[in-house]
Amino acid sequence: MPSSRDSSTGATTEADGSYPKLVERFRRLARFRDVEAILYWDRAVMMPPGAGEARAAQLTALDGARHEMLAGEETGALIEAAGARHDLGPWETANLREMRRAHRHATAIDAALSAALVTAGARCEMVWREARAKRDFETVRAEFTGLLGLVREAALAKAAALGLDPYDALLDAHDPGLGRATIDPLFDELCDFLPALLERVLARQAGDKGVPTPSGPIPTERQRALGLRMMDVMGVDPAWARLDISAHPFCGGTPEDIRITTRFDERDFASGLFAVVHEAGHALYERGLPESWRDQPVGAACGMSVHESQSLLMEMMVGRSRAFARFAAPVFREVLGVAGPAWQADALYRAFTRIKTGLVRVEADEVSYPLHVILRYQLEAAMVEGALEAADLPGAWNEGMERLLGRVPGHDGEGCLQDIHWYQGAFGYFPAYAIGAVLAAQFFAAAIRADPEIEAAIGRGDLTRLHAWLARNVRAKASLPTPRDLVIEATGKPLDATDLRRHLEARYLDGAA
Amino acid sequence: MPSSRDSSTGATTEADGSYPKLVERFRRLARFRDVEAILYWDRAVMMPPGAGEARAAQLTALDGARHEMLAGEETGALIEAAGARHDLGPWETANLREMRRAHRHATAIDAALSAALVTAGARCEMVWREARAKRDFETVRAEFTGLLGLVREAALAKAAALGLDPYDALLDAHDPGLGRATIDPLFDELCDFLPALLERVLARQAGDKGVPTPSGPIPTERQRALGLRMMDVMGVDPAWARLDISAHPFCGGTPEDIRITTRFDERDFASGLFAVVHEAGHALYERGLPESWRDQPVGAACGMSVHESQSLLMEMMVGRSRAFARFAAPVFREVLGVAGPAWQADALYRAFTRIKTGLVRVEADEVSYPLHVILRYQLEAAMVEGALEAADLPGAWNEGMERLLGRVPGHDGEGCLQDIHWYQGAFGYFPAYAIGAVLAAQFFAAAIRADPEIEAAIGRGDLTRLHAWLARNVRAKASLPTPRDLVIEATGKPLDATDLRRHLEARYLDGAA
Repeated sequence: MPSSRDSSTGATTEADGSYPKLVERFRRLARFRDVEAILYWDRAVMMPPGAGEARAAQLTALDGARHEMLAGEETGALIEAAGARHDLGPWETANLREMRRAHRHATAIDAALSAALVTAGARCEMVWREARAKRDFETVRAEFTGLLGLVREAALAKAAALGLDPYDALLDAHDPGLGRATIDPLFDELCDFLPALLERVLARQAGDKGVPTPSGPIPTERQRALGLRMMDVMGVDPAWARLDISAHPFCGGTPEDIRITTRFDERDFASGLFAVVHEAGHALYERGLPESWRDQPVGAACGMSVHESQSLLMEMMVGRSRAFARFAAPVFREVLGVAGPAWQADALYRAFTRIKTGLVRVEADEVSYPLHVILRYQLEAAMVEGALEAADLPGAWNEGMERLLGRVPGHDGEGCLQDIHWYQGAFGYFPAYAIGAVLAAQFFAAAIRADPEIEAAIGRGDLTRLHAWLARNVRAKASLPTPRDLVIEATGKPLDATDLRRHLEARYLDGAA
Repeated sequence: MPSSRDSSTGATTEADGSYPKLVERFRRLARFRDVEAILYWDRAVMMPPGAGEARAAQLTALDGARHEMLAGEETGALIEAAGARHDLGPWETANLREMRRAHRHATAIDAALSAALVTAGARCEMVWREARAKRDFETVRAEFTGLLGLVREAALAKAAALGLDPYDALLDAHDPGLGRATIDPLFDELCDFLPALLERVLARQAGDKGVPTPSGPIPTERQRALGLRMMDVMGVDPAWARLDISAHPFCGGTPEDIRITTRFDERDFASGLFAVVHEAGHALYERGLPESWRDQPVGAACGMSVHESQSLLMEMMVGRSRAFARFAAPVFREVLGVAGPAWQADALYRAFTRIKTGLVRVEADEVSYPLHVILRYQLEAAMVEGALEAADLPGAWNEGMERLLGRVPGHDGEGCLQDIHWYQGAFGYFPAYAIGAVLAAQFFAAAIRADPEIEAAIGRGDLTRLHAWLARNVRAKASLPTPRDLVIEATGKPLDATDLRRHLEARYLDGAA
């Protein structure tokens, strides 16, 4: 068969042309996905409130067009034909693997169920807002029961199509290959040491009362200037990135056009600042994905857990480290226009590593955070598998909070209504938050082993050595390996919690790190 | 044949289903068009500079998908089938007429020529930026010659498909039915009286030297507050509209999600303010189009000339009127934090109606503005029809400026390089600017005849009576009538320049209006 090199994708083409046709099809899909990313950002940051319905219709039309292209019979036939070839290189083979996965997920659920999920999710989210304001689960119970029924149906359909258990089938959409068989032992390990560690750290920090604490009010404009300065330190360039304000911080847009958002609290500058640092970690990963594969499935991030590891690495391993506080303290004083003992490196480091046990996940410190996530994992797995009914969620939530974190919410608003995910119909996403924390420590430890100079450089505000390791071992690989293989290649071992445990013990018990 | 009422579009459906299928298809097209509108706004206002290529690829993908849907054989067959029906109501019949027009324009040019135009237009625009900076037409001559060749080819193809002359075929895309046969006598009339009128006004205003003139600097934030206040006065609501800054003011977005932009000059607050008032006129038209036809071709604006009439009506007839100055003067003083004789109603009115004869269209006053447009019309018609070659443009431009406005540019930068349109490949758009000015006066005169209280209400900042007339006679009709019929229905006569002449003479020679 005649073959030639396609310069734009590195693909060896054959007479049947199936693979190049797929490349072209997925390139177009990527454009639509990028457009959707900008529209989501716009909705959260810019859109006038009255345009909600119109925007939903636009997103539905784009999603529909994308689904048609992805799930169409022709796409399946092309994947089939390309799969019969034996001349594809490793990137092309991995690309085809990711195309097949996307196609399978798209075809697993029929159009009627998919539409019902979108509609029920949108309606339930609206009722959830009311329920949360009223701190009352009963308000959303009926809507949520209906939505959960549809989620279970979708999970069963995906399970059949993918040959997985129902909850694993949902997990697979976010993190291929990281199912319950991987998560259960990992989370068991976390549950073994985190509660005891938390207690020891709290006892130790109880003696910190006299330490000066940075306080506000600090005007929003100065905090914004600091956010931009920190983005610059981290290598996020205004030539391809913006910083804006939204109710919940996120990193949106596309690799060429990163949209970071945060929110500023005049009394708590650290909250807005670390949101920027966290989202900048996501941004650097997206930006560092290989340019030549940017619009192909293999060029995408290696799952949500690895993605979250990149943001938590920047926030927890870099941003809240003693080394970074040394570099940052004079920058903070200059940009924020502040002075005094609370703005010295040591006081800032202590403030940034203060444990705040609470009931709310998004306000949690890095020691208790994984426990919040594990609770959600246990509950959502049980809901999807039918072991927990929607009506029993508040009780199960409160019981789990007491078991894992030793506290019981005073009302559902700070309990089972605090997160939006389930009420939008999003199940299977939570574990990535805790796996990401584990991976952040594991990647960072491997980076330090490979280049011990990284930490001293961070103390000078120089992240280039860290970027070099991450670029080589994480960013440039995109989805060439599976998440599981990426971790082994980069760190020399499978996913495990040893490095997170060491990091937390060093930082919170020995005063080192 | 069985028939039933389709509640969402008012269509009577038949067994063949062709018309409802078209409605669904064009609804989807409308969603894509809306998405493109948001992306264009984002590019001009928000996008980081490095994302230009990625955004172009996104817009090309969307446009390609839209073109496929619109030009596809199935669309043609459905239009054919629906055209054979005799049970469609007036809105449905007009909708089908507009669908056919869109389909014909989409199919007139083959994909290769269409792509060549996009590529050549993008390249020529880039070279034009350089040429304009260097004030040198020669820099862009070669690129522009090539682009003009493609434009002529496209005009010939459209002419054959539409049964029109080549330049009329280009005009038809913006203003169906308003071809050269309408424009020539209208513009001849303008050329008959405007130059002499201009001379008389200049002579009269030469005596105004002692009048106090509002001057800056006025901080951008106050100007922005005034822009928002004026939007409020005009009935543009932040629930469905935003005000932002861009290099060139425009009104973008969608009827549910209006995006007005302006720019602020600290030394000239009127420039940014009247840009807001002008664009708000566009916004009110879009917003006032009938909601039930919003995503169908018949629900769109009745051509570009009528669109421009709505912005010029708000800017020239309302915003720069003596009545409005009476209302606005205390508002300006309060919001801008200014005081003194230059900020009294009469001084402001004189400032807003000062004639500034110059070489640049976008800075022109309302007396000389149509003459700038007529020059472009004469030149672009000659270029499309082959009577003027690209290389001869600078000479023809300078000759025309002297003939129409009595002045010759010092260089091409303030001459034939000042507008972006031609260098992007946009021909046939310019006449709408002058027809819009004529129509603004014609509509406003009809409104005052129908409701003489309108002017007194404007003096109180109350536009509700004017809105009521415009809503009934222009906005609510959308594209149900053709532009020609809309004008007759609304004003009792075809398009003619009498009302513009009367308006200008009253305002600039008698001191009334």
